[in-house]
Amino acid sequence: MKFNKVLDNCKIYEAGKPIELVVREYGVDTKDIVKLASNENPYGTSPKVTKKIQDISKNMFMYPDDSMYELKEALANKFKVTSENIVIGAGSDQVIDFLVKAKCDENSKILMSKTTFAMYEIYGRQAGAEILRTPDDQHNLEQFEAMYKEHGADMIFLCLPNNPLGECLDTKDVYEFLEKIDSETLVVVDGAYQEYAAFKDSKKRIDPADLINKFPNTVYLGTFSKAYALGGMRTGYGIGQVDIIKTMYKLRPPFNISTLSLAAAIEALKDEEFVNECIKLNFDEMKRYEEYALNKGFSYIDSYTNFITLKFEDKYISKEVAQNLLERGIIIRDLTSYGVNAIRITIGSEEQNTKVFKVLDEVLDELKK
Amino acid sequence: MKFNKVLDNCKIYEAGKPIELVVREYGVDTKDIVKLASNENPYGTSPKVTKKIQDISKNMFMYPDDSMYELKEALANKFKVTSENIVIGAGSDQVIDFLVKAKCDENSKILMSKTTFAMYEIYGRQAGAEILRTPDDQHNLEQFEAMYKEHGADMIFLCLPNNPLGECLDTKDVYEFLEKIDSETLVVVDGAYQEYAAFKDSKKRIDPADLINKFPNTVYLGTFSKAYALGGMRTGYGIGQVDIIKTMYKLRPPFNISTLSLAAAIEALKDEEFVNECIKLNFDEMKRYEEYALNKGFSYIDSYTNFITLKFEDKYISKEVAQNLLERGIIIRDLTSYGVNAIRITIGSEEQNTKVFKVLDEVLDELKK
Repeated sequence: MKFNKVLDNCKIYEAGKPIELVVREYGVDTKDIVKLASNENPYGTSPKVTKKIQDISKNMFMYPDDSMYELKEALANKFKVTSENIVIGAGSDQVIDFLVKAKCDENSKILMSKTTFAMYEIYGRQAGAEILRTPDDQHNLEQFEAMYKEHGADMIFLCLPNNPLGECLDTKDVYEFLEKIDSETLVVVDGAYQEYAAFKDSKKRIDPADLINKFPNTVYLGTFSKAYALGGMRTGYGIGQVDIIKTMYKLRPPFNISTLSLAAAIEALKDEEFVNECIKLNFDEMKRYEEYALNKGFSYIDSYTNFITLKFEDKYISKEVAQNLLERGIIIRDLTSYGVNAIRITIGSEEQNTKVFKVLDEVLDELKK
Repeated sequence: MKFNKVLDNCKIYEAGKPIELVVREYGVDTKDIVKLASNENPYGTSPKVTKKIQDISKNMFMYPDDSMYELKEALANKFKVTSENIVIGAGSDQVIDFLVKAKCDENSKILMSKTTFAMYEIYGRQAGAEILRTPDDQHNLEQFEAMYKEHGADMIFLCLPNNPLGECLDTKDVYEFLEKIDSETLVVVDGAYQEYAAFKDSKKRIDPADLINKFPNTVYLGTFSKAYALGGMRTGYGIGQVDIIKTMYKLRPPFNISTLSLAAAIEALKDEEFVNECIKLNFDEMKRYEEYALNKGFSYIDSYTNFITLKFEDKYISKEVAQNLLERGIIIRDLTSYGVNAIRITIGSEEQNTKVFKVLDEVLDELKK
């Protein structure tokens, strides 16, 4: 059967390998597997959220409140905006989809960093848009500006901090850049890991209300998947001016998050203490990775997230390292498909990280031979 | 900001009013509200599924197995197809989105019944397609055939049984119709309520494997939202030939259902006894509505689903009936926006239905004055 020709040019997202697959393919026992490939919160979901879900689990037969009144009120209160500034997505991922489909068609251009979140391009291609990437791996605003001047763009994606590399621009520099962007260009500031960046360095902190008030052509994206420890529940949000958010509602399907996801997100917002504790532990453990890399003589990218990128340069081939780790039950992310000879490791719990170092020692020793 | 011009022509889905809204707007106590507007299973979720979700609720921080291996294997086994014939959606709703976006653009035509599931048109308009509707409210295959001959169509939707009216075509007639459709026209057979239809009358039963083997240009849609009592968990599926399903994967976002939704669906498939019991109770209770309508002197549409459509003709105005019920805490669906002077009521539990009859008596008495 013939399909829309735009699909010929589409790409498929490569998900982190699930534990079930490693059990099936390599016969590793489930309990021995360490999965640090998808930037999940290694401290699990807040016990208060888990309790809430157990209490209401019999409500699965009921559709959620599609107005998402309570969740939007809670987010509006947290970010000092109104409910009308908020759209909820099945992950911030889905808000990206709404934004791209609302703004772009086959005549559009989307500007992004060379190595950044894969879904920007995937949704862009689905809309038939042309993808423009700055030359450096990491975000470089001079390059963004130069390419914007040369080619123009209907949309710009800034991932702050950036996934999968972990670097983060200073907010001051981002604002200076945004001053130069036309009000008809939609700029998406993806703050999926903002809670981590804001904790580590206040210069990286983005205040969504301030952002969208100063720059009405921007939309801020947030998620419950990372610091809020609800990666499996697919809940994120976009914050923008009312005209943009209203337009998103034309594309939002009804009931786009589940009854339990909605309840979990509402409850998670009430337990900021848990979130802050997780973030603190994250950066304590991250130091061990930095030391490990230095000891082994390879480099890492200074990270403002819950993962770290280890760069092998000419010492090892990241694909081989990742495969060898996988066969031993350690699931991390090889960045070869992003054009970088590096691996991205989610910062795990103390016990998980200790195991990673032990197995990585073995793998690197073997690959050296 | 300027957006894609196709959005000017988009429609927004009108969701059934949630209980929270009736509490907020009419001050009715939560426990007094009877919500029979969204065709949820009134017997709640299977206790086995609820138990499973309680057991794994601490896993909310983890992304689901994006291959959905276990769920697809279970469905493949149930329907005697292979995993490669199956795509999972966030509700069968999302599979409709994939199918429309894969097949249609601004030059496409989509043929459907006058009064049928609203999302077909909503997704169709998002793709910029022209919507063609047969003149009768209920599915009429002669009209489908005549319009297909006259206008052609890239896609055809058959809702079997039909939401929101409840009628269902005989499978034999559907097959005869499909013989006349070009192999390049994608025909979607939406079986969201098939479990009910197959129970009531075997002539309405559709076997997805038989359907897609006889007609490789068809896709069968199923859902866990109705008979499987997981309306809030947003899990549905499409069954089709491998070439079509492969194409859907180009549009499927990663992790499109939540960790708990995936587990709930897998568990629900193991408890068919619960499903069968719910369906039996549904038709026992439906008889009470049929009798009620006859006693009151208005008609109903013979229903093969878990809801019934009461037609008021010139006796009452459905919008007024619905509003009066709402203010008394009974949430049902007014079909005015579908162009019919009728209300759709989900068949509730015995207790819920008794309350509906009592309050409906009051409302109809009052409106008669």
